[in-house]
Amino acid sequence: MRILVINGPNLNLLGEREPSVYGDNSLEAINVELSEKAAELGYEIEFFQSNGEGALIDRLHAARLDCAGVILNAGAYTHYSYALRDAIAAIKIPVVEVHLSNVDSREEFRKTSVIAPVCKGSISGFGKQSYMLALYALDNIFGEK
Amino acid sequence: MRILVINGPNLNLLGEREPSVYGDNSLEAINVELSEKAAELGYEIEFFQSNGEGALIDRLHAARLDCAGVILNAGAYTHYSYALRDAIAAIKIPVVEVHLSNVDSREEFRKTSVIAPVCKGSISGFGKQSYMLALYALDNIFGEK
Amino acid sequence: MRILVINGPNLNLLGEREPSVYGDNSLEAINVELSEKAAELGYEIEFFQSNGEGALIDRLHAARLDCAGVILNAGAYTHYSYALRDAIAAIKIPVVEVHLSNVDSREEFRKTSVIAPVCKGSISGFGKQSYMLALYALDNIFGEK
Amino acid sequence: MRILVINGPNLNLLGEREPSVYGDNSLEAINVELSEKAAELGYEIEFFQSNGEGALIDRLHAARLDCAGVILNAGAYTHYSYALRDAIAAIKIPVVEVHLSNVDSREEFRKTSVIAPVCKGSISGFGKQSYMLALYALDNIFGEK
Amino acid sequence: MRILVINGPNLNLLGEREPSVYGDNSLEAINVELSEKAAELGYEIEFFQSNGEGALIDRLHAARLDCAGVILNAGAYTHYSYALRDAIAAIKIPVVEVHLSNVDSREEFRKTSVIAPVCKGSISGFGKQSYMLALYALDNIFGEK
Amino acid sequence: MRILVINGPNLNLLGEREPSVYGDNSLEAINVELSEKAAELGYEIEFFQSNGEGALIDRLHAARLDCAGVILNAGAYTHYSYALRDAIAAIKIPVVEVHLSNVDSREEFRKTSVIAPVCKGSISGFGKQSYMLALYALDNIFGEK
Amino acid sequence: MRILVINGPNLNLLGEREPSVYGDNSLEAINVELSEKAAELGYEIEFFQSNGEGALIDRLHAARLDCAGVILNAGAYTHYSYALRDAIAAIKIPVVEVHLSNVDSREEFRKTSVIAPVCKGSISGFGKQSYMLALYALDNIFGEK
Amino acid sequence: MRILVINGPNLNLLGEREPSVYGDNSLEAINVELSEKAAELGYEIEFFQSNGEGALIDRLHAARLDCAGVILNAGAYTHYSYALRDAIAAIKIPVVEVHLSNVDSREEFRKTSVIAPVCKGSISGFGKQSYMLALYALDNIFGEK
Amino acid sequence: MRILVINGPNLNLLGEREPSVYGDNSLEAINVELSEKAAELGYEIEFFQSNGEGALIDRLHAARLDCAGVILNAGAYTHYSYALRDAIAAIKIPVVEVHLSNVDSREEFRKTSVIAPVCKGSISGFGKQSYMLALYALDNIFGEK
Amino acid sequence: MRILVINGPNLNLLGEREPSVYGDNSLEAINVELSEKAAELGYEIEFFQSNGEGALIDRLHAARLDCAGVILNAGAYTHYSYALRDAIAAIKIPVVEVHLSNVDSREEFRKTSVIAPVCKGSISGFGKQSYMLALYALDNIFGEK
Amino acid sequence: MRILVINGPNLNLLGEREPSVYGDNSLEAINVELSEKAAELGYEIEFFQSNGEGALIDRLHAARLDCAGVILNAGAYTHYSYALRDAIAAIKIPVVEVHLSNVDSREEFRKTSVIAPVCKGSISGFGKQSYMLALYALDNIFGEK
Amino acid sequence: MRILVINGPNLNLLGEREPSVYGDNSLEAINVELSEKAAELGYEIEFFQSNGEGALIDRLHAARLDCAGVILNAGAYTHYSYALRDAIAAIKIPVVEVHLSNVDSREEFRKTSVIAPVCKGSISGFGKQSYMLALYALDNIFGEK
Repeated sequence: MRILVINGPNLNLLGEREPSVYGDNSLEAINVELSEKAAELGYEIEFFQSNGEGALIDRLHAARLDCAGVILNAGAYTHYSYALRDAIAAIKIPVVEVHLSNVDSREEFRKTSVIAPVCKGSISGFGKQSYMLALYALDNIFGEK
Repeated sequence: MRILVINGPNLNLLGEREPSVYGDNSLEAINVELSEKAAELGYEIEFFQSNGEGALIDRLHAARLDCAGVILNAGAYTHYSYALRDAIAAIKIPVVEVHLSNVDSREEFRKTSVIAPVCKGSISGFGKQSYMLALYALDNIFGEK
Repeated sequence: MRILVINGPNLNLLGEREPSVYGDNSLEAINVELSEKAAELGYEIEFFQSNGEGALIDRLHAARLDCAGVILNAGAYTHYSYALRDAIAAIKIPVVEVHLSNVDSREEFRKTSVIAPVCKGSISGFGKQSYMLALYALDNIFGEK
Repeated sequence: MRILVINGPNLNLLGEREPSVYGDNSLEAINVELSEKAAELGYEIEFFQSNGEGALIDRLHAARLDCAGVILNAGAYTHYSYALRDAIAAIKIPVVEVHLSNVDSREEFRKTSVIAPVCKGSISGFGKQSYMLALYALDNIFGEK
Repeated sequence: MRILVINGPNLNLLGEREPSVYGDNSLEAINVELSEKAAELGYEIEFFQSNGEGALIDRLHAARLDCAGVILNAGAYTHYSYALRDAIAAIKIPVVEVHLSNVDSREEFRKTSVIAPVCKGSISGFGKQSYMLALYALDNIFGEK
Repeated sequence: MRILVINGPNLNLLGEREPSVYGDNSLEAINVELSEKAAELGYEIEFFQSNGEGALIDRLHAARLDCAGVILNAGAYTHYSYALRDAIAAIKIPVVEVHLSNVDSREEFRKTSVIAPVCKGSISGFGKQSYMLALYALDNIFGEK
Repeated sequence: MRILVINGPNLNLLGEREPSVYGDNSLEAINVELSEKAAELGYEIEFFQSNGEGALIDRLHAARLDCAGVILNAGAYTHYSYALRDAIAAIKIPVVEVHLSNVDSREEFRKTSVIAPVCKGSISGFGKQSYMLALYALDNIFGEK
Repeated sequence: MRILVINGPNLNLLGEREPSVYGDNSLEAINVELSEKAAELGYEIEFFQSNGEGALIDRLHAARLDCAGVILNAGAYTHYSYALRDAIAAIKIPVVEVHLSNVDSREEFRKTSVIAPVCKGSISGFGKQSYMLALYALDNIFGEK
Repeated sequence: MRILVINGPNLNLLGEREPSVYGDNSLEAINVELSEKAAELGYEIEFFQSNGEGALIDRLHAARLDCAGVILNAGAYTHYSYALRDAIAAIKIPVVEVHLSNVDSREEFRKTSVIAPVCKGSISGFGKQSYMLALYALDNIFGEK
Repeated sequence: MRILVINGPNLNLLGEREPSVYGDNSLEAINVELSEKAAELGYEIEFFQSNGEGALIDRLHAARLDCAGVILNAGAYTHYSYALRDAIAAIKIPVVEVHLSNVDSREEFRKTSVIAPVCKGSISGFGKQSYMLALYALDNIFGEK
Repeated sequence: MRILVINGPNLNLLGEREPSVYGDNSLEAINVELSEKAAELGYEIEFFQSNGEGALIDRLHAARLDCAGVILNAGAYTHYSYALRDAIAAIKIPVVEVHLSNVDSREEFRKTSVIAPVCKGSISGFGKQSYMLALYALDNIFGEK
Repeated sequence: MRILVINGPNLNLLGEREPSVYGDNSLEAINVELSEKAAELGYEIEFFQSNGEGALIDRLHAARLDCAGVILNAGAYTHYSYALRDAIAAIKIPVVEVHLSNVDSREEFRKTSVIAPVCKGSISGFGKQSYMLALYALDNIFGEK
């Protein structure tokens, strides 16, 4: 069973970018740790990062054919990309929204998530652990079916 | 005389995506029907679909050189892409905005079209027929000149 | 099969009123052209114009008994007449909203249509052609049933 | 090491209240499951439910003396209780915000959390599993120190 | 020392697009003039134009490795691209925001710049000269260090 | 002693119009029942229904001369007719606002009543019973004097 | 030369209605006084009062054929009747907006005039004298031509 | 059959508190009169007053087990207590909202009722009579079943 | 009997400044004409112009001792000077607000007058004639006493 | 003569809670100091602290019978408790609003006080001294009578 | 040690201006009383009143050189003078905001103080006593240092 | 050829005032540097600073007679002085808006410039260099003519 982990704009700079907000783990380090946790639970993980809205939508579309669920950190697109929202609503597999930082404790514009209403659930504020929790959440959702 | 039909984000999933809202025709089926109608009226139609804002803008720009008019379903970009709006304003050929669903009867954010003010006109709510009506509208505009 | 064409406030002055916005066709001229198109498609058309909100509602109510569909240009009532909206919702025949001008490219208040959410669809910006397109739209809706 | 689980207004009716939104588990059933999970991880859990804003604040205050962290489902107080927010900010132990339902996909007023900015992080939309994920999150936070 | 000049959506049509607003210089002409000015001051200039949000972010990221500063005309992305804003904040080199037209004297939506708060400074309204002034500004910033 | 019962736009279609919202009683049936209740209490009732704002105002004005109180269901005019509001304020007899449905549980625009501030009181949500309760309310007001 | 004086909703009750706000002159008394002043200046005055939006629009339309100017107290329609606004814009003779009371010192909703932008000018707060001043204003406008 | 009458914050001071707004009846006097009316109709009435949000919610919860309906004057909690709203939605018996004064004719904040959307209906402005009317309303609701 | 005519910021440039909006009469020319009209009616007029908010307030204060009324064109201070508003409210003589242009037909910010609520009345849109009408208005007010 | 000092939610943690904002005095220390100052002025002081909205209202009600005035720090309830506001308005003794910190220099939501309009006056920003100043203020109010 | 007392626009008319709001003490009377209180506490007081924004700023600037603190009643400038706000922030001595009336219980616009965030603290609603309390507050602040 | 450099409120304290925001250069130092740069380019510079809105407007007016262009740092007046805006619009010479700090990265109110729409262009965020860039901008504008 495959799970897709999608990271949106600027997350490729993780570890280097504003470490006081986002931590000093690189995205690669998080992915490695996540892959190991996933393997223990019996999942195969695929990673995708892009700074382009269209590329993220394309990959989400593809996921409906070859993945059982998605862990999505949409970065700043979270706050205005209705196109991404429609993409999530268009596919039928569960999508879990994650954020490294506690978005509600930052700038005003980060308090609005236009994708949250069509995601299965949302996890934010736990650093890289947000991804691990999303993995557990998906595992539980699959187990319930 | 050539007409460009541009479909924006998530319209590639038409027929499969939320059929109660968007109908069960695939985009391909609509395109075939539209091509036939256009041929009857003496137009050649070119189709373009992309989930990327930049790609849509690029294609709109190109259209100013090789097309007489555009039928544009900008999908969710309708509601926030000022870049797309500027692209429409930058080219001089008429662009007709179309929507499959009645966007005003859905979520609040869909009631705002940032591209409508620079389009020639707007047609929404008639399913695939919205495209056919746009074709007639362009045909009439060309006839008036 | 009969179709009712309703024109709201100030449309009786068409041709004479702000021709740069609304064109120089009189309402009568548009009606004649529309009648001919309708006859070709096998419809009988009835025209009604009034500047009064109540009279427009009365005529919409009556239409549910003797018409198969309505083409409605509600003029400025479009932007605030919730009473008209309720009238459209109260009758079961399809109502198509039309506007001569591209309402989204004009004053801010014209961007809100309180009737659009309960209409079948909406067409704006094509001058008198907006009515013709609405006729085709209704014809197609009747054909689908 | 002790963790306090606080449930706010109306959560005592869980299982009986709008099961399509909140699921059909009673609060007691969730607590039992959560206690077991916690025991496996080496934590003792204490439960507190109240419909009163003052009582919730009192219990949060007390927690700063005898608990290492808090899992908090503040129910509807989430959306307006600045008093609760101040209580969370006043104590120094980590508080994790949880919600059974995906609050962003419901009424407009549920999209605002006045407590989120002062919580450690937030988890919503996974039913009873939201509490389990919060437990893992706290466990991870304690492990990091 | 290298300076990157980034032009966003629709600026490729400069000279041809709404010349009353944007002037009749092509982007190429501006670039040539800017290169000459830069050479006099001892800088090498690199130019990048794209209509895609992702491509602009990618290029900004790359600039952190091989450029000393950026002159950025983000076009319409200025008004809503929080992803671009995050990219500017993520890199440490100074970014100067420029606009050809006086954006505050145009449509309401152009009065908001979501990128300005994370740029070093902002220059607008001087036509192609805006770019030259940005060059002087960067030159001065480098001189201060 | 005479009481006037005024019904505004679209209430003539009661019973036929959206019965899930407004119930399946016709306005005539409600009037008959109301007349009987009124007769028992010693009142004569007069009924007036119009879809026109002006006609409703005219009838309200006349009521100041020949009626002791008014039961008013202003339909959608409730939400924007400041002219009706002024008419109610201009006459000195008590006017009771009634609604069949619970207007607060429907569309956002129905939550605003511009006439409520100048009415004696307001009753909504009890179907045809709303009118009966208004009758009791007026009876009580007359008794108090 | 003829001048039309139009009074909108509830102004027929002048003198009787809230005299502390509107004064105790009846509309008839004002009209007599205004007629006399007009005769002195060489104008014939016609009076029209209606509570109906449509009737007011009809009379405004007619005025374009047989009057040189209009003095308009639109009553509460001032604040929301975009249909009336369009009627004023549609005719070419000057329309002067008048109000008996100082509308800006009353309820919030009275601070907005949707008709003012298309009137020649506006006079408010001088009681019946507002009409006399409007007469002088029109006289001056005619004199300037 | 039992009906619960709940009075919220500050209603214990009735008669003494701002009598020009709330009348000079004490809550006890109203309760006595209401009990008598209820006895005539065959109902037993229970009264509950509290200034605490939690206590009001607790009593509402209890009512679902031992009462057939609720008459609720939530006082100022009407305007912001989403917790109370959730409590009303959580129980299945009908709740009728009442207010002594005409809340719409007072301060701006009193125009919003966050509980109205989940109540059966609403009655306001008739002084103590509001409670009596609510009793009749419930009686009618029970009779309909 | 003396009347003070106060002109606020930028009105000293009248005739030279944006003549298409404000006309080509200089302030001096208007004053001369106004003086003559006033003399005919038996008034002495004093003129004061200043670009300073404080100076305007000082002069208004002084007017309460030596003038019977004020004609005030507050220029742009009209839209935000609550200090000027307080000055008008603090003196007891009548103040008439005038504007040369129709302020409601210009920029959005000009639609708000913070001084109107405390003025006797308001006249706008008649060019220099606005001052003459204000003179007649004051004459009438004095006559009424 | 007795004065009641009421402290609302979270003020029991004073000294321990965010000392950089609220100072390092405990509430007890402030009370001791305040008691001494009051004794010098001839007042007896009673202290009450609660985190519950209902308990605060109850105590305010009781104060009308046994106290001459109230010093109230309503904590976060300041910003949304209309119930507390109604309680203050319902009692006739003077209530002085106090805050330790300068609430206007903190989060946006702290800029609104829903209780201020019904308090006698307001003092904020002077730390524990705010209470002493409120004591002087009450002393002066009593002296004026 | 010197304290500057600054009074802004219209406060020179104190005693004469709207005495029901501002009391019947003249500013001079208040100053005398304040001077005496100050002398007792060992301070010299200087008074400054101006209706001009610039003059107030000039005097605030000067105060940084020759005064230990400022008592400031900015009158209506309180609500919009960001220039005054910047002046307060620019000087380092403590500034205490005072108001005679309870500004929160008056017009909506008086609820906003743009200077409060940069003042040391704020006192309003106690008439002339507000100034005395501000004096005590400054005395206490000086004592703390 | 003469250029006027106008500095608004509080800029006289430059160097001393909040140096972390505005730098530690005094206004005099900036002026000296600017004069030298101007002399090199062949311009004579005149400096004017005032804290008064009226004085700034007076000087702007005078500039139309004796200067070729204006460099304007309006300080806090930037955000609300529509009077200054009108003054800029009233004179025909180019005015360049400058700010020392990046106003968009500070308080919310600083993001609005009411003068920008009528200035030639705007430069902000470069410290004293903002003035130098404005000089180059003017030089270029003069060269273009």
